[in-house]
Amino acid sequence: MNNHATTCAENLEKIRKEKPLVHNITNFVVMNYTANALLALGASPVMAHSEDEVEEMVALAGALVLNIGTLTPKWVDSMIRAGRKANELGVPVVLDPVGSGATTLRTGSARRIIEQVEILVIRGNPSEILSLSNVDSKTKGVDAIHGVDDALETGTRLANELGAVLAITGAEDLVTDGRRVVRISNGHPLMGRITGTGCTATAIVGAFLAVDRDPVSAAAGALLCFGVAGEIAAQKTKAPGSMMINLIDALYTVSPQTIIDDARMKE
Amino acid sequence: MNNHATTCAENLEKIRKEKPLVHNITNFVVMNYTANALLALGASPVMAHSEDEVEEMVALAGALVLNIGTLTPKWVDSMIRAGRKANELGVPVVLDPVGSGATTLRTGSARRIIEQVEILVIRGNPSEILSLSNVDSKTKGVDAIHGVDDALETGTRLANELGAVLAITGAEDLVTDGRRVVRISNGHPLMGRITGTGCTATAIVGAFLAVDRDPVSAAAGALLCFGVAGEIAAQKTKAPGSMMINLIDALYTVSPQTIIDDARMKE
Amino acid sequence: MNNHATTCAENLEKIRKEKPLVHNITNFVVMNYTANALLALGASPVMAHSEDEVEEMVALAGALVLNIGTLTPKWVDSMIRAGRKANELGVPVVLDPVGSGATTLRTGSARRIIEQVEILVIRGNPSEILSLSNVDSKTKGVDAIHGVDDALETGTRLANELGAVLAITGAEDLVTDGRRVVRISNGHPLMGRITGTGCTATAIVGAFLAVDRDPVSAAAGALLCFGVAGEIAAQKTKAPGSMMINLIDALYTVSPQTIIDDARMKE
Repeated sequence: MNNHATTCAENLEKIRKEKPLVHNITNFVVMNYTANALLALGASPVMAHSEDEVEEMVALAGALVLNIGTLTPKWVDSMIRAGRKANELGVPVVLDPVGSGATTLRTGSARRIIEQVEILVIRGNPSEILSLSNVDSKTKGVDAIHGVDDALETGTRLANELGAVLAITGAEDLVTDGRRVVRISNGHPLMGRITGTGCTATAIVGAFLAVDRDPVSAAAGALLCFGVAGEIAAQKTKAPGSMMINLIDALYTVSPQTIIDDARMKE
Repeated sequence: MNNHATTCAENLEKIRKEKPLVHNITNFVVMNYTANALLALGASPVMAHSEDEVEEMVALAGALVLNIGTLTPKWVDSMIRAGRKANELGVPVVLDPVGSGATTLRTGSARRIIEQVEILVIRGNPSEILSLSNVDSKTKGVDAIHGVDDALETGTRLANELGAVLAITGAEDLVTDGRRVVRISNGHPLMGRITGTGCTATAIVGAFLAVDRDPVSAAAGALLCFGVAGEIAAQKTKAPGSMMINLIDALYTVSPQTIIDDARMKE
Repeated sequence: MNNHATTCAENLEKIRKEKPLVHNITNFVVMNYTANALLALGASPVMAHSEDEVEEMVALAGALVLNIGTLTPKWVDSMIRAGRKANELGVPVVLDPVGSGATTLRTGSARRIIEQVEILVIRGNPSEILSLSNVDSKTKGVDAIHGVDDALETGTRLANELGAVLAITGAEDLVTDGRRVVRISNGHPLMGRITGTGCTATAIVGAFLAVDRDPVSAAAGALLCFGVAGEIAAQKTKAPGSMMINLIDALYTVSPQTIIDDARMKE
């Protein structure tokens, strides 16, 4: 649906013009990469996790990104504190439940955040999304072992229960608010060979939410933009080290028109 | 003033020859990048933050770099403990008050460090420097929203009050001890699109302080060297991902003579 | 000895096919780089350090990598907890005693881990290995100041005492179980100008242990594979930034046959 691609292109221009502050409470592995991705895209990233400052920091931000990749209970406390303040102030919140399903701590923390904070978008791979449901799923581990469609039913139900948008990513990406489903087929397999591309997608959803309060178009646009950047990046390499760098470059150079032209999405 | 450029070139040779150990207590976002920048330059970086070892580690070091980018009160305690030991031993200390002015925790922590540790050089953007003054400033946020000259009066006053050198960085950089002012115009706008270039500048000041106890020439030389490296790096790219890598390469390849030839600095 | 090179080539194919989960409790500086290196190699890295989840996480893993690079006592507690669980489950454990010898905390923590956890492979530079012995050594600092042969006697004794394999790395690498000694001469000096190449070598040992329970051939093969990748990476650059990226690329592209052809190892 060209509507989403056009909105994505407009949102990218807004991000580059307004440079929204995106507050990340995220994991140690990807902090540098997601900060660079956000900067390349045009946003202003800040990483701050101390309970003593997250409320003040999120008050300055256009969006809050919560990511449980290297969580401890203390960090989750900070995420909830920041999230509740964000809710109070109307700052949009996106959650990345990294590895939910792999350990009790991860699944429990993801659910605790969802219960206590109003999340606008949850971005995860199918295993992670399935783990958020109370219905027993056979998932385990941090890697996606399902196709996105395996998680669509659960995602749709969760979207309705939580009033959130679910962004389920894999070879194809699905974005659903429980009624509408947007499918995005952009991207490149080499993106999966770089650590933190999922986390980076989530951070980019944060940047888009900062300029677009419709969580469906923001999430779909973020995944489209990242996917198109991935395709541009992959044109010049066949290996993940260079891909990692080219992807940052492409987030900086990708034009709004290219996004419209190259979009492979449908609703 | 060519004196500083010549001293910078000599200091770079000393760093490459002596490989001084630079002890960093810094933020999670930039740890990898600043370690690589210091290694490329010729120094030996070590990152160590536990209160149980910082005093022993700093005793082995040629300089101590304190950076509050992802601070918690506990990390600030470690910074102060390391800083006081450094003072006792005559190890030079440089402070990067990342995001000071943005939250009470950051401003308060930066001031607490300054009160309890004798800092030789403080490197920050104009907003951060302005926030260190007790005079109310209208700054907020982690990004520089002022030109460097907006912070010169405050920087000069702080330099005199604290007996420290202030290095205020932006499109142009200023280094002042409260009387002398050195201006460095080297560098490239793409450096601002990489996360942690400010933090890296601070770490490089640490490396220069390890071989040059005149904080004006050390700080000015570090910023000159980094700026010239940035110009070399930008010759081969127009995007921040490659810039990030080229900049590490340039810190390794830049020759002392190029620094002298390309210096755009005046006192 | 071509046997090890052939086994290395076979192990690389197994890693690429089986994608073993490698659980890392490692330092902040190298988390991103080692995760990318493991992914490029073909393994599935996970970084998880909370005491509340390490036992569950390691139960999913094919190997556990412990690295004390930015340690605190609390992180060491997590390492021991994960290590003991790994022992219970038969998951192989590799230890990187980063900076052991430089501070009491590091030396003490490395020894504490070794006492409480059965370690299959210890990978360190000569200074670190020497520090693990109770015999007083004159080592200090985080950088290797000895040749690998200076640590061979201590390494041999430790290997026998601990029933572990010692992998001592430098310009040449030595792997010994206390009786056999394998020497690997692959690699490139630029690898030493990237932060965390030692840590990455250790993580790669973890990936090889996940598919090969003979710790001598696993450790020797890992160092061989990494060394050959380093040589490939260095063919296209003379500076450490590009080397860093090329090395990730080479871990992805290196063929088993190239490893056999380029191996410079003897037993």
